Amino acid sequence: MAKGASISGFPEWLPSERVVEQRVIDTLRKVFELNGFIGIETRAVEEGSSLLKKGETSKEIYLLSRLQEVGHESDTPIEQRLGLHFDLTVPLSRYVVENSGQLAFPFKRWQIQKVWRGERPQEGRFREFVQADIDVVGNGDLPEHYEVELPLVMVSALEELRAFGLPKATVHANNRKLSEGFYRGVGLGDIEGVLREIDKLDKIGADEVARLLVENCHADQRQAQACLELAQLTASNGAELQARFDQLWSKYCTAADREQYHSMAQKGLDTLAMIIDEAAAIRPGSVIADLKIARGLDYYTGSVYETFLDGAASLGSICSGGRYDNLASQGNRKYPGVGLSIGLSRLVSYMLHSAGAAASRVSPACVMVAVWNEDDRLASNRIAAQLRERGVAADVAPYAAKLGKQIKYADRLGIPYVWFPADAAGEDGGSGTDQVKNIVTGQQCAADVTSWLPDSVYARQTVSLKH
Amino acid sequence: MAKGASISGFPEWLPSERVVEQRVIDTLRKVFELNGFIGIETRAVEEGSSLLKKGETSKEIYLLSRLQEVGHESDTPIEQRLGLHFDLTVPLSRYVVENSGQLAFPFKRWQIQKVWRGERPQEGRFREFVQADIDVVGNGDLPEHYEVELPLVMVSALEELRAFGLPKATVHANNRKLSEGFYRGVGLGDIEGVLREIDKLDKIGADEVARLLVENCHADQRQAQACLELAQLTASNGAELQARFDQLWSKYCTAADREQYHSMAQKGLDTLAMIIDEAAAIRPGSVIADLKIARGLDYYTGSVYETFLDGAASLGSICSGGRYDNLASQGNRKYPGVGLSIGLSRLVSYMLHSAGAAASRVSPACVMVAVWNEDDRLASNRIAAQLRERGVAADVAPYAAKLGKQIKYADRLGIPYVWFPADAAGEDGGSGTDQVKNIVTGQQCAADVTSWLPDSVYARQTVSLKH
Repeated sequence: MAKGASISGFPEWLPSERVVEQRVIDTLRKVFELNGFIGIETRAVEEGSSLLKKGETSKEIYLLSRLQEVGHESDTPIEQRLGLHFDLTVPLSRYVVENSGQLAFPFKRWQIQKVWRGERPQEGRFREFVQADIDVVGNGDLPEHYEVELPLVMVSALEELRAFGLPKATVHANNRKLSEGFYRGVGLGDIEGVLREIDKLDKIGADEVARLLVENCHADQRQAQACLELAQLTASNGAELQARFDQLWSKYCTAADREQYHSMAQKGLDTLAMIIDEAAAIRPGSVIADLKIARGLDYYTGSVYETFLDGAASLGSICSGGRYDNLASQGNRKYPGVGLSIGLSRLVSYMLHSAGAAASRVSPACVMVAVWNEDDRLASNRIAAQLRERGVAADVAPYAAKLGKQIKYADRLGIPYVWFPADAAGEDGGSGTDQVKNIVTGQQCAADVTSWLPDSVYARQTVSLKH
Repeated sequence: MAKGASISGFPEWLPSERVVEQRVIDTLRKVFELNGFIGIETRAVEEGSSLLKKGETSKEIYLLSRLQEVGHESDTPIEQRLGLHFDLTVPLSRYVVENSGQLAFPFKRWQIQKVWRGERPQEGRFREFVQADIDVVGNGDLPEHYEVELPLVMVSALEELRAFGLPKATVHANNRKLSEGFYRGVGLGDIEGVLREIDKLDKIGADEVARLLVENCHADQRQAQACLELAQLTASNGAELQARFDQLWSKYCTAADREQYHSMAQKGLDTLAMIIDEAAAIRPGSVIADLKIARGLDYYTGSVYETFLDGAASLGSICSGGRYDNLASQGNRKYPGVGLSIGLSRLVSYMLHSAGAAASRVSPACVMVAVWNEDDRLASNRIAAQLRERGVAADVAPYAAKLGKQIKYADRLGIPYVWFPADAAGEDGGSGTDQVKNIVTGQQCAADVTSWLPDSVYARQTVSLKH
């Protein structure tokens, strides 16, 4: 990264690093479009009222004010002020409602954009970063099969990124209905509170979570124990999931008045079982049930997902999401959705700094045309123009300096070929024809601008792993 | 556009419109990279002090405040607050200075990003829009040849956009040194003031500009007349430019003490003459001298450019820029630059609403695989996966509804092919093999998922002109 962001939390890439980010974005877009997702872009701002409505990040909003409003900002209630979006899900919901008449439903969309979090500056937290999202939004209803298909699209996208050094990704899935039914089944009522504490399990450990459940969520020791045991339940197929859940239910939810919550839990369990069984049929090992997954954002109503990379636990979840049935509505009409979001900036940071992803060169140019003297620049420009017309990216030496200096410029940019125009080739002891030199291999040969092509290895700027 | 932006000045595209914008961005990127420009992205925010330093748009800044700071915004001086960038030139200058040790100079970069202007909401003005910029920045010095090469890169980029309905573009060039030398030569001192009034020439006409020059810039009638005659000077080659300028100079700048300003004007004139002569040699008619071009931003120090489209005068300049020698510096070290910027959102709006550019289809998918019943969905998903592996973008029917309804979904998204899996083909009276139907032409035939390819006309989402 550009030697520490000059404003804390607002990272910027050096040109060679940006090549990697751009390739990652191109790759994701390719996978999303292969899967029939439609690209949209929403404005960076939303009204305060939408931003405050949903999401625990609502406290981390950047509000805008025009320079002319400075000193009078408070004249406008926050709900009516504009703020930068903190994710791409809230904007999608708003976009879908506004344009519902002109969209075909279910609406499958991809969106890769910056988002902002108005956090206090602190080490390692991004206040501006790129998210890459896919969602599908239904009109009135939304079939459950998308709850397994969308995580699988993300898995296939992340699989493509392994070429840039990303380890294998596994989606951990849970279901809010399952959790809520169970919590109510054991006699707890503060569902959001319990989820919030359970979400801390990996960070602070079981004992501490148990203490917080007792302290903050009116749980007794046995109830806390029940929640922890549920959170520790994992399963790789539906039957196993059902069996383990049944065991817990009969252990903790025996009171007669709790049975009413069983159907809620079972509904969530059925969806989760479907997800892991279908995923196993298509891509074994890609999606597992992990009942501690809680997700911070409070707009999820069913499936929730987090994604972890093998051997990169410190990164935490790199791709999260879930199903939200109530985020968007218009009158009685609801627009339920399910989607996942990759935190792209942290991922690119990992690829660059931990996985050794690197651009083959800084410049997209494949050839730099040398300039013998400034009066000959037009000839060099013409050669470059002819190469470009044939799809070969070409730069021209900035100065008609000594040849060594010109080659050094190409070398600093990683441009593999230097083209020597013929007309003054005599100065170079040349043959009177154009010559092209591969400055990586040292090979030089005569070349015709109307037919020459670079070796395929050197043709394009690529990203690969340093060894 | 999505039926009038729901927040004034913050436009959003419908999915089919976004296809056009995305293609325009892809095309520009391709041309910029063919020409050896390096892509970067800068953060959306800058410190107030940089935003306020330069540019007449400095009054149109959006400042940020964290939600927690509401009510206390004024505790922080504006210079130390963060604001959204209003162009990509100020961020580039800052980026170059911060990373100068790690860049190769001259640094040629392209950048396509959103910018924001904190204007009062008003009809037809964008407060959020996309700019597409190319610049080259030197370390200490910057050769003049870039002042003709950069406008020519933009012309070639705009030429590519004619496929999307853009009329022919002509760059109108002027030079601040030429203007300043002449204004001082006729005895005027308020150079910025005069430029500001001259900039209004097309909007309010010569008489009104003359009145303002007298009223605001201490000009007498004859001086105002001189400025207007200079502004009305155009030339298509350097010799003509020189001759017409000489005529004006000897008519208006005869006072003995004015001769000192002639060398300043001549320097600007030499650069401008070089630009139009070189441009004519490479791409005749693409760049002309037009001495009324003033440019609003005050950071330009030499060449200035505006670009107009044939028959689209109402759009005004769609691509502007110039040379800036003093925008970036570090100690005694200066980083002079020259660049141009396309106002992309307005251009896309023109293509969509005036030129009739349209996407061939909404969905990137080429095929929709039908689903006979929900139990067969896995089979349909597998067919889609096989198509995708071979590079064919594929969607799967959202519901195992009646076939007509499934086809209607494909049709609404513009997906040209519907694939009927074999296993249940009996229901369709089928042959027991997979079938694929082109729902545009009505043609249907047996197809093998391991070898089938779409007709090339239907393979990709494209953009063309409605007739």
